[in-house]
Amino acid sequence: MTDRPLIRLAPGGDRRVKAGHPWAFSNEIAMSPALRALPPGIVVRLEGDDGQKHGAWHFNPHSLIAARRLDASPDAACDAAWYRARIGACLALRDRMFDTPFYRLVHAEADGLPGLIIDRYGDSVAMQANTAGMEAATPHILAALRDLFDPRLVVARNDSAVRKLEGMEEAVTLLHGSDGTATVEESGLRFPVDLLGGQKTGWFFDQRANRAMVARFCAGRTMLDAFCHTGGFGLAAAAAGAREVTLLDRSEHALDLAMQAARLAGFGDRVTALKAEALDHLEKMAASGRRFEVVVTDPPAFAKTRKDQPAALRGYAKLARLAAGLVSPDGILFIASCSHHVAPPDFAEAVTWGVHKARREARILASVGAGPDHPVHPALPESAYLKGLLLHLA
Amino acid sequence: MTDRPLIRLAPGGDRRVKAGHPWAFSNEIAMSPALRALPPGIVVRLEGDDGQKHGAWHFNPHSLIAARRLDASPDAACDAAWYRARIGACLALRDRMFDTPFYRLVHAEADGLPGLIIDRYGDSVAMQANTAGMEAATPHILAALRDLFDPRLVVARNDSAVRKLEGMEEAVTLLHGSDGTATVEESGLRFPVDLLGGQKTGWFFDQRANRAMVARFCAGRTMLDAFCHTGGFGLAAAAAGAREVTLLDRSEHALDLAMQAARLAGFGDRVTALKAEALDHLEKMAASGRRFEVVVTDPPAFAKTRKDQPAALRGYAKLARLAAGLVSPDGILFIASCSHHVAPPDFAEAVTWGVHKARREARILASVGAGPDHPVHPALPESAYLKGLLLHLA
Repeated sequence: MTDRPLIRLAPGGDRRVKAGHPWAFSNEIAMSPALRALPPGIVVRLEGDDGQKHGAWHFNPHSLIAARRLDASPDAACDAAWYRARIGACLALRDRMFDTPFYRLVHAEADGLPGLIIDRYGDSVAMQANTAGMEAATPHILAALRDLFDPRLVVARNDSAVRKLEGMEEAVTLLHGSDGTATVEESGLRFPVDLLGGQKTGWFFDQRANRAMVARFCAGRTMLDAFCHTGGFGLAAAAAGAREVTLLDRSEHALDLAMQAARLAGFGDRVTALKAEALDHLEKMAASGRRFEVVVTDPPAFAKTRKDQPAALRGYAKLARLAAGLVSPDGILFIASCSHHVAPPDFAEAVTWGVHKARREARILASVGAGPDHPVHPALPESAYLKGLLLHLA
Repeated sequence: MTDRPLIRLAPGGDRRVKAGHPWAFSNEIAMSPALRALPPGIVVRLEGDDGQKHGAWHFNPHSLIAARRLDASPDAACDAAWYRARIGACLALRDRMFDTPFYRLVHAEADGLPGLIIDRYGDSVAMQANTAGMEAATPHILAALRDLFDPRLVVARNDSAVRKLEGMEEAVTLLHGSDGTATVEESGLRFPVDLLGGQKTGWFFDQRANRAMVARFCAGRTMLDAFCHTGGFGLAAAAAGAREVTLLDRSEHALDLAMQAARLAGFGDRVTALKAEALDHLEKMAASGRRFEVVVTDPPAFAKTRKDQPAALRGYAKLARLAAGLVSPDGILFIASCSHHVAPPDFAEAVTWGVHKARREARILASVGAGPDHPVHPALPESAYLKGLLLHLA
C-alpha cells in the first residue's frame, strides 16, 4: 500500500480523531492543491501533525467531512475480502439479535462502514452509498454480499439528499436481479415491499420493536395509524387483535401495499385505508368527534436542517395536540420523530406541551429509540435520530 | 368537604401549577401561622391568587415540596373508595402490559398517587409512603388493596432516605400477613424475595425488559453479573442458555437468595457466586486476564445528591473502563445507572469515555430506561432515573 496517498492533519487538528471520532473535517486537514486533486472516495492513510498513524480512511476533497475512518491499520486492504469481513461481522451480530433475516444489516459509521446503509429482506438487499468512498467501493460490497449470502436482488437506493454534500447525483438502480419487489416478515406477517419505488429503502426496520410494543395495547381496541406508509404499526395492531384499524397516508401506492398485506394476512375486513394529508385529516376527525383507543403518528422528519428546529418543535407540539384530541379516555398515544435535528428532551417537551394543550393528563410509559440493528457510534450521539414516546392518556 | 382547609398560591406562584406540574413548592404558597400549624399530610384545597381552583392536594407545611396534587376536583373524597379507583386504574393498565402479576403497580406522581410506590409480587405487596400525605393515607390504601386483590402480605418499606425531607422516620413494618417472604416470576424463573430485609422493595422490576434484552446475547456464552443483588441479570442469562454465569455482589444474603433461585431452576452448576466489593474485584479480575463474553454492571446510585454528580460521572467512567477491559473481543457490555442526578447524555459520555480509555471500539446497540410499569410524569422528566447502555465491543 505504499502508493496509498498520505493525508496529514493540520497542527492541532487531531484532537477529535485521537478521542475516537470517525471523521476528519476539511479544516482539520493540511490541504494542498495535490490533495484537492485526488479523486473523491479514494482510500488514504491519515497521520497527525506529530506523525502518529491514524489508519486507513476514505477521502473526499469536496466534502466538509473530508475523511472517514475505515480501519485502524493504514495498510488495511479495503478490498472485497475486507468488506466481506466487516459486513460478515455485522451479519453475525444481527443473527444474534434476530430470529429472521429481516433487519438493517449495516448502519454506517457505528458498524465500521462510514456512509454505508444496507437493509436486508431475506434474500434481497437495498443499499445506500452516502459517501463517494462507498460509491467507489460498491463493486467490493457487491462481491462481499455475494460471498456472504448471495442475494437474489440488490437495489441501490442512492436517492438520499445527503449525497449532495459529497457532490454526487441521486439515482435508484437495480444492481443485481430482475425486479424490485421483496417481502419483509415481521410479527408473523408478510409485507410486500417495493425496493425501487418505496420511501427510503422500502421498510422502516428502526420501528420494529416499537410496533410490537404498541401492538400489545391494541387487542380488542380501535386504532389509528397516521402517516402509516405501508402500514407497519396498523397491521401489527391488527395482527395483535385490534378490533378496527384505520390507516392514514397521502400515498396511494403505500396504502395499496398495506391493504395487500392486510388481505394476505386475512384481516382485510378489519382494516380501512384513508388517503389524505395526515395533519389536515387529523384536524377534521378531531372536529367531527371521532375517537380511537390507540393512536400512532410517525411522520416524516419535520426538521431537515438545524435551522428548521424551532418550526419542527412547533409542528410536533401541534401534532401531539391534534393526536391527543383523538384518543379516547384511558387510551394510548405513540408519537415518533425521525428528525436528526430535534433532541430527545426537546421532542418530549414539545409533545407533552401539545398534550397539555389538548387538556389531557398523560403518563409517559416509554421513551424509545431505534432498534439494535441501528447502532450508534459513541462519538456521533446525534446519529440516534429516532425518538418515540408511548403515552397513556387518562 | 367545606371543612377542607384552603391553601392559596402566592401572587405569581401558580405558573408551574397551571402548566400541569403536580407540585407546589413552599415558596409558591401564601404561608401563614395557621397553615404552618396544619398536620403534615392533610388533604387541602389549592387555589390561585386569582381564585382559580386547582383541586385537592396533600399538604405538608414542613416540606420544601409543600403540596402535591391528588385530584382536579377540590371536593374529591380522597377516601378508601378514591384510592380503590386510582389504584384500580393502575392495575388495569399493568394488566394490559404484562401477562403475570409481578410489576410496579403504583409509581407515584406519574400514576396520580404522589409519593406512593407499590410493588406487586403476585399475592404479596411491598409499599413505600414517601410523603406525609401517603403515610396518613395508608389505612385507605390498605383497604383499597384488600378490595382489589386481597393480598396475603403487605410490607411497608418506609426506609427510603427521602422520608427525611418530609420529617418522617424510617421504618420497615409488616402491615398485613405473617412473614416477609414472597416470590417473583420472571422469564420463566422463580426468585425468592425478602420483602423485609432486601434492598429497596426487594426486587428491581425496572430492569425486567433489560434483563430479557441482555439474556438474548448470552446463549452459549460466559457472563459476569456485577453488583448482581439477587441475580436478576445473571439468572436470566443462565435461563437463556449461558454456558457459565458469575454473580458478584458484596451481600452474602442477596447471593444466597440468587443461588437458591439458580438451584430451584436446575442450573446451579452453571452459576458461581462471588462475595466481594464489586469495583475492587473487577480491577483484580482485569489484572489477572479474566474475560467474559457478556458483562453486566448495575451498581447502586453513585450520585445521591446533585453535588455528587461530577464524582459520580468519574465513577461511571472508571466502572466502564474496568468492565470493558473484562469483555472478550466481539463481546457485550451492559452498564446501568439509577442515579437521579445523572442525565442520560452525561452518563453516555462518561461510559463511552471509559470504554475509549480501555482501548475498545464500541457500538451502542441500545439506550434504555425503566419498564412501562415505571411511568414518568410529563412535568417531572428528571424522575426517569434509570439509564442503561447496551454496547457491542469489537
